[in-house]
Amino acid sequence: MSKPVVIKIGGHLISAEEVLKENVRRFCEEILDIVSAGYQPVVVVGGGALSRRYVGVARELGRSEALCDLVGIEASRLNARLFIACLGKYAYPSVPRSYEELVQAHGSGKVVVSGGMQPGQSTNAVAAVAAELIGAELLVNATNVEGVYTADPKEDPTAVKLDRMTIRELLELVEKGSFYAGSYELFDLVAARVVERSRLTVAFVDGRVPGSIKSAIIDRICGTLVVPEEG
Amino acid sequence: MSKPVVIKIGGHLISAEEVLKENVRRFCEEILDIVSAGYQPVVVVGGGALSRRYVGVARELGRSEALCDLVGIEASRLNARLFIACLGKYAYPSVPRSYEELVQAHGSGKVVVSGGMQPGQSTNAVAAVAAELIGAELLVNATNVEGVYTADPKEDPTAVKLDRMTIRELLELVEKGSFYAGSYELFDLVAARVVERSRLTVAFVDGRVPGSIKSAIIDRICGTLVVPEEG
Amino acid sequence: MSKPVVIKIGGHLISAEEVLKENVRRFCEEILDIVSAGYQPVVVVGGGALSRRYVGVARELGRSEALCDLVGIEASRLNARLFIACLGKYAYPSVPRSYEELVQAHGSGKVVVSGGMQPGQSTNAVAAVAAELIGAELLVNATNVEGVYTADPKEDPTAVKLDRMTIRELLELVEKGSFYAGSYELFDLVAARVVERSRLTVAFVDGRVPGSIKSAIIDRICGTLVVPEEG
Amino acid sequence: MSKPVVIKIGGHLISAEEVLKENVRRFCEEILDIVSAGYQPVVVVGGGALSRRYVGVARELGRSEALCDLVGIEASRLNARLFIACLGKYAYPSVPRSYEELVQAHGSGKVVVSGGMQPGQSTNAVAAVAAELIGAELLVNATNVEGVYTADPKEDPTAVKLDRMTIRELLELVEKGSFYAGSYELFDLVAARVVERSRLTVAFVDGRVPGSIKSAIIDRICGTLVVPEEG
Amino acid sequence: MSKPVVIKIGGHLISAEEVLKENVRRFCEEILDIVSAGYQPVVVVGGGALSRRYVGVARELGRSEALCDLVGIEASRLNARLFIACLGKYAYPSVPRSYEELVQAHGSGKVVVSGGMQPGQSTNAVAAVAAELIGAELLVNATNVEGVYTADPKEDPTAVKLDRMTIRELLELVEKGSFYAGSYELFDLVAARVVERSRLTVAFVDGRVPGSIKSAIIDRICGTLVVPEEG
Amino acid sequence: MSKPVVIKIGGHLISAEEVLKENVRRFCEEILDIVSAGYQPVVVVGGGALSRRYVGVARELGRSEALCDLVGIEASRLNARLFIACLGKYAYPSVPRSYEELVQAHGSGKVVVSGGMQPGQSTNAVAAVAAELIGAELLVNATNVEGVYTADPKEDPTAVKLDRMTIRELLELVEKGSFYAGSYELFDLVAARVVERSRLTVAFVDGRVPGSIKSAIIDRICGTLVVPEEG
Repeated sequence: MSKPVVIKIGGHLISAEEVLKENVRRFCEEILDIVSAGYQPVVVVGGGALSRRYVGVARELGRSEALCDLVGIEASRLNARLFIACLGKYAYPSVPRSYEELVQAHGSGKVVVSGGMQPGQSTNAVAAVAAELIGAELLVNATNVEGVYTADPKEDPTAVKLDRMTIRELLELVEKGSFYAGSYELFDLVAARVVERSRLTVAFVDGRVPGSIKSAIIDRICGTLVVPEEG
Repeated sequence: MSKPVVIKIGGHLISAEEVLKENVRRFCEEILDIVSAGYQPVVVVGGGALSRRYVGVARELGRSEALCDLVGIEASRLNARLFIACLGKYAYPSVPRSYEELVQAHGSGKVVVSGGMQPGQSTNAVAAVAAELIGAELLVNATNVEGVYTADPKEDPTAVKLDRMTIRELLELVEKGSFYAGSYELFDLVAARVVERSRLTVAFVDGRVPGSIKSAIIDRICGTLVVPEEG
Repeated sequence: MSKPVVIKIGGHLISAEEVLKENVRRFCEEILDIVSAGYQPVVVVGGGALSRRYVGVARELGRSEALCDLVGIEASRLNARLFIACLGKYAYPSVPRSYEELVQAHGSGKVVVSGGMQPGQSTNAVAAVAAELIGAELLVNATNVEGVYTADPKEDPTAVKLDRMTIRELLELVEKGSFYAGSYELFDLVAARVVERSRLTVAFVDGRVPGSIKSAIIDRICGTLVVPEEG
Repeated sequence: MSKPVVIKIGGHLISAEEVLKENVRRFCEEILDIVSAGYQPVVVVGGGALSRRYVGVARELGRSEALCDLVGIEASRLNARLFIACLGKYAYPSVPRSYEELVQAHGSGKVVVSGGMQPGQSTNAVAAVAAELIGAELLVNATNVEGVYTADPKEDPTAVKLDRMTIRELLELVEKGSFYAGSYELFDLVAARVVERSRLTVAFVDGRVPGSIKSAIIDRICGTLVVPEEG
Repeated sequence: MSKPVVIKIGGHLISAEEVLKENVRRFCEEILDIVSAGYQPVVVVGGGALSRRYVGVARELGRSEALCDLVGIEASRLNARLFIACLGKYAYPSVPRSYEELVQAHGSGKVVVSGGMQPGQSTNAVAAVAAELIGAELLVNATNVEGVYTADPKEDPTAVKLDRMTIRELLELVEKGSFYAGSYELFDLVAARVVERSRLTVAFVDGRVPGSIKSAIIDRICGTLVVPEEG
Repeated sequence: MSKPVVIKIGGHLISAEEVLKENVRRFCEEILDIVSAGYQPVVVVGGGALSRRYVGVARELGRSEALCDLVGIEASRLNARLFIACLGKYAYPSVPRSYEELVQAHGSGKVVVSGGMQPGQSTNAVAAVAAELIGAELLVNATNVEGVYTADPKEDPTAVKLDRMTIRELLELVEKGSFYAGSYELFDLVAARVVERSRLTVAFVDGRVPGSIKSAIIDRICGTLVVPEEG
């Protein structure tokens, strides 16, 4: 039996035209290595710059935020579909459109690739809920920064990357809005609370570094490791 | 053309065995009056005590929080289904299982009744997102308290019910966890942020008082009115 | 390869608030024992008192019988969802909404839990049709009586529990409306005729007795055993 | 607002190769006349000889009765699809696969055409449940006999066609298996009990006679009229 | 009753980053003008450069053509979703995933926006089949050229734009692979044959010119008009 | 791991009433032999005479070609359903309604049986796209002729059956409309182009000869073998 694990890949990691092919290839190779090592991952892919560009058009034309969310979700699903095509027979062939479909797909034994699920919820939250549903203890979050900092390193020269922290500390950073892991969205609070309630371990890795996701899962080496509270 | 409006009915209002029939009948009559007055409501029903009882069993058997959420969602959908049966031909005949289905159902011109949507999201959040999607400016939230208080009136004798407040003030209450409108759940923060981003008006009413939902929609009389920031 | 078997659990067995958790836990443990013994069960759960309570409200508000049936089906699906949550990774993650979904779900190799299917058909009939579809030869029917009686033991002191009977005898009892196995519904006739046409074996067991379902499947010990006609 | 009505067309009426086109054309014209007269029909079409031929193959190859039922349902759906094609823009474009879809389709205001729904249930039962769901008071049943007889006219020369009977009398005929309206199937008992519980009026007409369905709906002239019990 | 019409918008018209917002806004305004003039359009949007970029990645990673098609379809659906968001309440809220869904959506009376449907079929073919299904006589094809030429104007200085041609002439151009309307794909042959078998009128317009789609529908002015054969 | 293979069975092979049962039984036995030999087939069944008869009625009543296509697809799905019933537990229990469903179904490890997919596409094209999607290198096409001829043998006495040809030669035959393999439909061009782009091997066999499909797959003996171009 393969071990369940969830991998969140930030959309920004595959947004730039020049790295799209290179990065998708690299991530897919890493995913297959992780499968070979005895894991069955659910991969959740963000929408990145593609999402921002399309949502921007909808928003400027004055449309409701929920409709904009639906556009962003569709962009993340296009990214997910690309991963599915590149993973070939190792991937479940469809992008799940609900959590029920996601769990059914996971039951096939294949790699499941999801984008966003619905308005009012980030792909980070999708990854956290997916971890609960498939019984994964580890959630790897690949972004384009090295890990979690005490403050925004671009603005605060005293900002320090944390190697290890508790979920409670993570939640506090998120709540005061000073959580610098590549996304500043509201709904990371949802993700953080799901992580808290189910005592998941979260490994933040720098997705720009080849092999970083694999290292986090197999060797438990990562940028910042978030662990459940002691006791 | 009917005006879109969203009505959230707290599950606790229909939980007690002795009032189930009486309250469902009363709410359905109110809903039909609201339809007659030129509105097309989306009604979102919570799971209440039924949800708590079933979720309690799943949780004690040690199951994941997301699986528990799915049980709670199913309970709210049973409540929604009961409203649909009682509204007869005025209701869209199915409980929507996704936001896309909800908007499609609203397009039928009938009253749509929804329960929860997915793990990690309260029925309050569903109501707020539904308001965005159907273009409703008003969201009526019927609970079993009279409105929003500055503190929990049961614990703090100086607690005062607020007749009117801004969304920003609502958000602050929710964020410091001192929001007493019958539910203390995490995800009301999601609901509040959706209300904020789309500048919705929210009317909190005491659902135990006959006619309170109708008054909020038609006469704009309610327990607490939450309005977008000035300017 | 696991052997297919169908287990019908009467909703009344999990209706009382005080036994809900205890009985669901007990049934789930029994189901896992049955899985370990080499069977792959489809479990069909009734709606019980929950169903009756909700259907009662819809009916008093004057709604059509088919709409009432839909309410009762939703109640049985909530019960099914609770079993799924409690069975965790051993269960197929969704409640099937059609027979096609049920058979697809069975193909996953997991325990499938279903409620009712559609208006005009009892969960007994669902269990019988499910047995045909998955090729099960045995259908275990757990109710809150000890077996099939010649008459209603509460009214007729000469009523005798039958240890063994033919399907033909079962059908005759059902047809004259004197079949006392916990349910007096019309559509048990449908169930009985399905049992007849496919020559299924039906074991009626007292679901209040721990281990009774397991005994029926593994040891072929039960309250009343209904066997196909000789010859 | 159009009045809801249900029309059951026996598959045998369109089975013979030489009358297929002629009868489908005729029925579609009648249906459009009925629409023009202010009705919105749900049409339920049986599988007829096509169904029997295909089911016969499956049964001889030793397959389960439920799988055979699924083949028969697919045959009735092909017949339904043909009606949809021939009704063009007046028909809802899909054959409903569940009662929920049927009611949603009816909400479109178009003519809905259905075949069978699921194993263990005849198209007569589908028609009766559909009547409950859409609130139709009248169910027209077009077969290839003139009406309901006291016995099989081919075997009993004293058999008399009944012009009018109560549902109770219908139920008695069905229960003693002496109901000669073109189908001898078990599940007509289900249909009859649904008719009874909802006090529907059923008009049996001879579908071979042009205009007979229209007459039954508009002029209330039919072969046998089954009415709810008095008082 | 609004008149049905199909509008195909080439993905290249909205591909360039700098014109995305401007062109989507312009097309949506035109679509609403067309609605006001009494038409109910089905809009089919291509995938354009977005599709090419994503399909390119999948293809270089050595994946099957059908999987690449699925990626391209998802890209066109993202474009369709953007139109839906920008059309707001005038659009059917979902991108249809099959022709049955497309026709159901059209039945809602709203503007339907579709992308591609399935592997092995271009969005031109989708537009042609959609025209058949909704009974549209006119199919407007907006590309980034002025109309149909006798040869590729970039390569052949004697190439002449045709103002009017028969479907037969169109088919001949497509068959000899010398059809210069912005797309050289195989499946335009499918589209052309569908146009032929249903005798549709096709108006090719230069989508870069504001108002060109509207002119084609309302004033019948276009780059090249393809008409059914005489007689 | 079983090897993927696609088998197209022309509907005409099971159309005649007298051979329906015999041929379906024979094909199912061959399919199970092929499964035993280590293959996992996707079987695509045409509509044959049943399809033609029903489409003929729809067309004479003046309905659109796309609606006629939908009728023909439904007929092929009835044939597919019959195969599913006869294959019993070896078959995936549903007829896929989209390519995504087809690939999901193939992931179950069972024999998948499909009919047509959508308007404007033949079952030959479905078979070719299915081969791409499941990664099959061989597509067996069983018709009621012995193989591919240089001309129609009924009209041209010099017509010669080709034992082996390249895809390019196949495409040329199809393009000039002189491809005699039992179907003269437009969309075989689509099928041929899909075969070309993915360099599939196609084996045409005479489905009237028992064992011909099995021979083609296991022994590579067939009427005409179409191979990718050299080099």
